[in-house]
Amino acid sequence: MAWRSLELARNNSVIVAVSGGADSTALLAGLDELIKSKKLDVRLIVAHLNHKLRGQVSDADARWVSEFSRQLGYQFIGRSIDVKRLAKRTGNNLEQAARRARYDFLKKTATSRKAKLILSAHTLDDQAETVLLNLLRGSGTDGLAGMEPVRKMDSKSNLIIARPLLTWAKRSDTESYCRARGIDFRVDEMNANEAFARVRVRTQVLPLLKTFNPKVEEAISRAAEILREDNSALDAAAERLLEYSGVTLSSPNQKQAAIRADLLRIAQPALRRRALRQWLSVNRGDLRRIERAHISAIENLLFSPKSGRLVELPGGGVVTRKAGCLHYVGKKPERRTNQRTHT
Amino acid sequence: MAWRSLELARNNSVIVAVSGGADSTALLAGLDELIKSKKLDVRLIVAHLNHKLRGQVSDADARWVSEFSRQLGYQFIGRSIDVKRLAKRTGNNLEQAARRARYDFLKKTATSRKAKLILSAHTLDDQAETVLLNLLRGSGTDGLAGMEPVRKMDSKSNLIIARPLLTWAKRSDTESYCRARGIDFRVDEMNANEAFARVRVRTQVLPLLKTFNPKVEEAISRAAEILREDNSALDAAAERLLEYSGVTLSSPNQKQAAIRADLLRIAQPALRRRALRQWLSVNRGDLRRIERAHISAIENLLFSPKSGRLVELPGGGVVTRKAGCLHYVGKKPERRTNQRTHT
Repeated sequence: MAWRSLELARNNSVIVAVSGGADSTALLAGLDELIKSKKLDVRLIVAHLNHKLRGQVSDADARWVSEFSRQLGYQFIGRSIDVKRLAKRTGNNLEQAARRARYDFLKKTATSRKAKLILSAHTLDDQAETVLLNLLRGSGTDGLAGMEPVRKMDSKSNLIIARPLLTWAKRSDTESYCRARGIDFRVDEMNANEAFARVRVRTQVLPLLKTFNPKVEEAISRAAEILREDNSALDAAAERLLEYSGVTLSSPNQKQAAIRADLLRIAQPALRRRALRQWLSVNRGDLRRIERAHISAIENLLFSPKSGRLVELPGGGVVTRKAGCLHYVGKKPERRTNQRTHT
Repeated sequence: MAWRSLELARNNSVIVAVSGGADSTALLAGLDELIKSKKLDVRLIVAHLNHKLRGQVSDADARWVSEFSRQLGYQFIGRSIDVKRLAKRTGNNLEQAARRARYDFLKKTATSRKAKLILSAHTLDDQAETVLLNLLRGSGTDGLAGMEPVRKMDSKSNLIIARPLLTWAKRSDTESYCRARGIDFRVDEMNANEAFARVRVRTQVLPLLKTFNPKVEEAISRAAEILREDNSALDAAAERLLEYSGVTLSSPNQKQAAIRADLLRIAQPALRRRALRQWLSVNRGDLRRIERAHISAIENLLFSPKSGRLVELPGGGVVTRKAGCLHYVGKKPERRTNQRTHT
């Protein structure tokens, strides 16, 4: 199985996120099989967030995961959150609010248990759903590339999230695995709510697409994999373009506020845009609210014969062109208080 | 309108492909408007291929396009083909056979009339359908990038095909335009046949996707545009990697049979694979029957510590590794008979 290829350091704590649905129940049971047969030597901790979306049913799910973990002999950590209230308070939709709450919970749990790795049971089906949802929104390569099998949880920590089932197991495989081993599972509360676009993609769109290609999840997942590879190649090339233009991403305090315009002008448009996004990200700390239109405006500045114009960015920060360079002035990254930008 | 931005040389012959459907009728009427108001100075020739898919209705379509062209004062060139018989003979499906026949007809017509430009009335809707069909097949960046607004008809000629409506006009816009101008149009025979996967994407998939996002065609078309830009940046980077590795695509007779392995090994996987495909294409004349698996096999050869192994390619041709280089031996490109490969 694919999770064997994960290099898990011996006897380290590993968090596995278990909703009680077939996917995560199969993942937990599979990990248990590897641990009991001495093929895997980690301290497994089961984490479950009760989203409180289906009242007593949600509570019963939580009790079931807790009981199953106890039977297998693993520590169980459960928390509850009222996702509906959270969504109302934050202005996010239910699905966004649920995802943020879940990732926050997993990060906190990992930190408190000194775990460096979180395992999540996303399948091929989840990948196909993610790609389709992003396509429906008009995402670019990033979105169509779907979820990564292994990635850092955020840029600030060394916490890794891995999805051992993502590239090969279908949801139906996890159901068969549970049945074959005589293990019960629950209907995940997040999977039964038609208010979620994802659930409608699963229950309406994918069944229709299967009438064109019975292996459509595999097809979409393969496309996403190719795009992930393209994406890394482009990111690396854009980073090199930024380096040549006078900005070194790895030493962020050197001169990143100014970059040469000449190389950016002759670069391929896709690379230029990526390089500009990376440059803004270094200077601002993140790319929140930066849209394609802002990058286009900076490109216009780059090609404009009139010097002295500027582009204002949402949330503060300005890009100007002076003496053959683009300059970033304004909003500083949140975590770099000693740094000054030169105008 | 977008076709104004096409640089059309004065008084040149231009072929416009007209099926009689709303899209191509609107394109023809719009071009006519530009010509009559002296904003466009070209010699327009209307081309129509009767696919004979709906018997007398198909014949009536052809007569209608001929009559409409005559009314507007343009030359009409019509041909008939029995697409069903052609599909049976060539082993292609109906849609592939129809497309090939249509493009052959347009190319021949352009050549015989000394036209350098063919205009086709593909819309945003067609683009969304193309991207979805390619996604259903598991295509990579190339397929998901959809149709190009302007491209060379093939690598051997200077004939250009342009799609002036592709990036902005919806099918419904072309219908409104025809109605507003009091112009009748036909139901394109290719658009009414549920045997075509494309027609089912149009009548079943897109209406369902619209319940998620009413502007889904625009969203998909935007995604395709981003991927087209990424695609050109990656192609250019791969071409440079090949150049550095000792192969110059622009002078194809110099040494392209051997390339250095070292640079390919350290390159980003996505670039390496593109470079290998370009290299094979130069040596073989095309990439027919070359799949991802063959490229992976060549990558294995590249990283294998044992020298002397080889990869056999379908349809002839072998790649070997010797003295720090990959060598292509065998099947020569069809149109380069003087060339020898060194083993």
